Amino acid sequence: MLYGKINFLQLLLFLVVVQHSLFAQEFKLSDYLIEGEKDATLSVLTMLQDAAKHKNSKVIIEKGTYNFYPEKAYEQYCFVTNHDNGMRRIAFNIKNFDGLTIDAQGSTFIFHGVMMPFNIENSKNIDISGLNIDWFLPLHSEGLIEANDTTNHSFDLRLADNMPYTIRNEQLIFIKEGFEHDLNQAILFDPERKAVSYNTSKYTPLKMIDHIVIRNKDKFDYHNYIDFRRPEYETQDLEYAIKAKELEPGLVRISGLKGMPPPIGMVLVCKGQFGKARIANAFHINESSNVKLHDLNIYYAGGMGVIGERSQDITLDHVNILPNPEKKLMVSITADAAHFAGCKGKVVIDYCNFRNQLDDGLNVHGAFVIVEDILGPDKVGVRIGHFQQAGFQFAEKGDRVGIIDVDKSPEVAFQTTVNSLNKLNQDYYIITFDENITEKLNKGFILENLDWYPEVTITNSQFADNRARGLLLKSPKKTIIKNNYFSNMMQALIISGGINTWWYESGGAQDLLIEGNTFGDCSYDGRKRPVISIGGDEDYKGRQLGKIIIKNNTFNNFNPSILKAGGVNRLEFINNTINNSKTFPPTDFDAYVIDVKQVDTLNIKNVKISKDFVNKENIKAVKHNLSN
Amino acid sequence: MLYGKINFLQLLLFLVVVQHSLFAQEFKLSDYLIEGEKDATLSVLTMLQDAAKHKNSKVIIEKGTYNFYPEKAYEQYCFVTNHDNGMRRIAFNIKNFDGLTIDAQGSTFIFHGVMMPFNIENSKNIDISGLNIDWFLPLHSEGLIEANDTTNHSFDLRLADNMPYTIRNEQLIFIKEGFEHDLNQAILFDPERKAVSYNTSKYTPLKMIDHIVIRNKDKFDYHNYIDFRRPEYETQDLEYAIKAKELEPGLVRISGLKGMPPPIGMVLVCKGQFGKARIANAFHINESSNVKLHDLNIYYAGGMGVIGERSQDITLDHVNILPNPEKKLMVSITADAAHFAGCKGKVVIDYCNFRNQLDDGLNVHGAFVIVEDILGPDKVGVRIGHFQQAGFQFAEKGDRVGIIDVDKSPEVAFQTTVNSLNKLNQDYYIITFDENITEKLNKGFILENLDWYPEVTITNSQFADNRARGLLLKSPKKTIIKNNYFSNMMQALIISGGINTWWYESGGAQDLLIEGNTFGDCSYDGRKRPVISIGGDEDYKGRQLGKIIIKNNTFNNFNPSILKAGGVNRLEFINNTINNSKTFPPTDFDAYVIDVKQVDTLNIKNVKISKDFVNKENIKAVKHNLSN
Repeated sequence: MLYGKINFLQLLLFLVVVQHSLFAQEFKLSDYLIEGEKDATLSVLTMLQDAAKHKNSKVIIEKGTYNFYPEKAYEQYCFVTNHDNGMRRIAFNIKNFDGLTIDAQGSTFIFHGVMMPFNIENSKNIDISGLNIDWFLPLHSEGLIEANDTTNHSFDLRLADNMPYTIRNEQLIFIKEGFEHDLNQAILFDPERKAVSYNTSKYTPLKMIDHIVIRNKDKFDYHNYIDFRRPEYETQDLEYAIKAKELEPGLVRISGLKGMPPPIGMVLVCKGQFGKARIANAFHINESSNVKLHDLNIYYAGGMGVIGERSQDITLDHVNILPNPEKKLMVSITADAAHFAGCKGKVVIDYCNFRNQLDDGLNVHGAFVIVEDILGPDKVGVRIGHFQQAGFQFAEKGDRVGIIDVDKSPEVAFQTTVNSLNKLNQDYYIITFDENITEKLNKGFILENLDWYPEVTITNSQFADNRARGLLLKSPKKTIIKNNYFSNMMQALIISGGINTWWYESGGAQDLLIEGNTFGDCSYDGRKRPVISIGGDEDYKGRQLGKIIIKNNTFNNFNPSILKAGGVNRLEFINNTINNSKTFPPTDFDAYVIDVKQVDTLNIKNVKISKDFVNKENIKAVKHNLSN
Repeated sequence: MLYGKINFLQLLLFLVVVQHSLFAQEFKLSDYLIEGEKDATLSVLTMLQDAAKHKNSKVIIEKGTYNFYPEKAYEQYCFVTNHDNGMRRIAFNIKNFDGLTIDAQGSTFIFHGVMMPFNIENSKNIDISGLNIDWFLPLHSEGLIEANDTTNHSFDLRLADNMPYTIRNEQLIFIKEGFEHDLNQAILFDPERKAVSYNTSKYTPLKMIDHIVIRNKDKFDYHNYIDFRRPEYETQDLEYAIKAKELEPGLVRISGLKGMPPPIGMVLVCKGQFGKARIANAFHINESSNVKLHDLNIYYAGGMGVIGERSQDITLDHVNILPNPEKKLMVSITADAAHFAGCKGKVVIDYCNFRNQLDDGLNVHGAFVIVEDILGPDKVGVRIGHFQQAGFQFAEKGDRVGIIDVDKSPEVAFQTTVNSLNKLNQDYYIITFDENITEKLNKGFILENLDWYPEVTITNSQFADNRARGLLLKSPKKTIIKNNYFSNMMQALIISGGINTWWYESGGAQDLLIEGNTFGDCSYDGRKRPVISIGGDEDYKGRQLGKIIIKNNTFNNFNPSILKAGGVNRLEFINNTINNSKTFPPTDFDAYVIDVKQVDTLNIKNVKISKDFVNKENIKAVKHNLSN
């Protein structure tokens, strides 16, 4: 009998393993707090250092309010995709953990200045819950439009005392703790609706810039490819067209606008120059697996709420990203609520509420890289596509990559396997393959990592009142969007397979179900967009999408345009109800409710459309139309 | 007999070792160059990757002109002391080498944009020679003062076509490749003398700034110590007082100066805001030993020429740092020619010529850190003193440190040994000691690393025509300054033991010989300074210096002030000749030639002083005066 053979040493080993892994070591923050010390950062870091020595550690943070400052935070240079890279000051440094549960029991964490609350890196089996993330002073700015002058293109901005500012050389500069920004990337919020303003695109972003001449520009010698969108280049030939003047403390007049001044009563929200404002995301999940965030609120972050990259199996359950209900801010966080780039396994969003952020609700994609140099029979030099992907872990040994001859087709021309990836710098990587295939490549070819796309399930959640979109989904793996609520300034959903040469985000849905959702007003910023965009129109250069089923949804929209789709193998639009919400005057009143082109198999059935919407269907270039 | 016992295996091992180490592997750049490729960066990096696989590799770079661009350079976040930390793009990535000789055979390396030519890190036995370092376009700016208006406080600046610029919101901004700067840190050069202008301090730095109000500043919550000199804080409450207007392409009028406009015919040199301009030093020697640079020219760098830290045994032999004689630039490099912080062993400067740089010729010191928190009986949290020391490797396990109760005395109160140092972030380190001694410490105490000071020998070299000083020497180890030439805008020599709470540079000479040097005009910027400053005056709060001998030197100075000294154990000033150069009108005509206070033993003998200089000696508070 096997059990009879266990000797004393084996038993001892068993007990040690059990104690080490099953009966997790427990740590309490109260044991680490320093009496009279308001800054909890050092205490948390010390506790986590101890917890890192054990497998499956459990950390209890007793309910309370804790302050975190950057001066004694853990520091690391972080490449955070879709953010601005840089030295991050980290409070919760979760690196190289094998099992960690943090239960903060409803605590509130108040961050100060430029910090990253949580960095989860090279770790697995992480469970974090029971906390509210907030900031002492916001890193973006908000002010009420108190007056305007459409003749002189000026407006007066009322600034509350949580918005320190100065007028520097006739410019309004918002001063933060270790940071500052100007009026760039402005948008209007409607304080009545506590959402992005109807028609904001008429006024925002503020037209505040003039182009200027650089003398002797021909003396520059740009030999290699340079991304001139980088902040150090982007503004070299720009100056402010506007001027600011303080009328009284807290009231500033902005004049010299090159567009319409924003309407009185709206709240102007801004965060400064693109490429300099995404510096303080709340969670970074990097090269990790099985990470669950649940029962927590992110009231603020100067960047995204949750950004995951090169990670596997991430769940957000009862995660709310929305403004602190006790404060008067219009904005929750200053970029996407959640964003997953180059992830695999399963991404699950359940019972979440993402509101009032300054960018999309959720974005899931990979990243293309571009062949720059052929360096050998199995070796290429590639450059990243957008500077906010710099340093992104495109691939590792063993990853299957697709190679795309983008001038010919957006589809993968052939595949190969990565042998090594060496980041010479954050913009330029050297990749070797398992095969000698570079004779089939040319400069400008695009590489896509085929292994790192996740299955995505988004259920029982709300995506509303934010700038930009609800969901942007590009994973070719099974994707389910069920029982959610959407109301977004732009599209609720963008399902695209385009080779976008601005962002270089990769993918293209192949198996997508959109079922039982309620869509409130969308695309209310004043531009002409549908509620759901799929693929593209006649000019669509993107990848052919697979099977997309849209059923049992309700749309309550002020404009008729609900679905625009093209470049899909099979598209079903079944049992959907479309009502006219009449919330706003329509801005696209003669648009088609359903506008479909270039679809192989189309099936539109049992769709109820409000009789207010006159132009119901525009169907072109469909091979098999199964519609009733 | 021992030799008789060597068997075949031992012989084989011996041969392998010999081949591996004695007969060095040789690499030629020509084997790595890519045909038709102007950018040599990738070729050099690949060659060095191969060379790194061998001990004592030899690299030959055949004589030629090679261009280096940042886009395909090796990248690493670098803490470079006395510079601005950041991501550096590196051409010669010399990391983890055990023996490397680079012979560039007289080649010229032209760097583009923001780069660091050489990073030598964690390496030993490095020998580099035979190269000229230059830049395609300078990172600082120069322009000729073509007109001025003393009534309206304006001047007109003529800008050559190697100085691309723009006028942005009435400010002159110099545009570089991936960088830009304003008129900050300006100084005048005299094109006739090709040196810093006489009396430049009357005009520079330009008084170009006004203070402004930050509204609701009281809302900030700065709980911990913050260095508000950091660039992100320094300018928050400043605006430009000046305005720029282009009169014609290449001619710009600057008005609104709050001081005197600079004189016509001088060249205005500037490099932009402090804390943002030291980004492209030529050599970084970090945690390395036995590094020899010889027979090479550094014609340009956007930072220091050679910065060494936490390294042992560095020799500069026939290293010239001066403007490219084929170009018309006033300036060679934009900070110190050479600078060694926290080094040990021997620092040797022989037959070097350091000219026209924008900061000191040579600076040798350690760095103090300041106790911020007592974290346990053997554990402290310390902060670095100046933000340009952030990330500096203050100590490692086993280092002997002195502890200074700075409010009581600048001398070391007691010593202990470091057990560990953990950089939580670049500004805040946690140090544990071998002993429980923190009960003897308080917040504000200062730590000094006693082990990492070098012997210094500076011979047969020239230090001239630069902004700031010749040499700043603080090492307590034997220091010899012999057969050199000095002519500097400020002091030729500063020998100090002060606890300078601006820079926090540590040390204090104990054994110094200054012999057989020639001192040309010094301190000609218009302020009242001697040629040699030692210690301080009555208010001197610094550390007592040791034995300082100054003999057989010749001074040819336009001002009488040659030596100011105080706080020294033994000072000898023997066989020195002091002439009146009459180069400029004196700016300090009634100063004492020799001004000595607070010296234990003084010996002044055989000093010949020009009869033009009336006030010859002022000797006070000397215990033993052996002078003749």
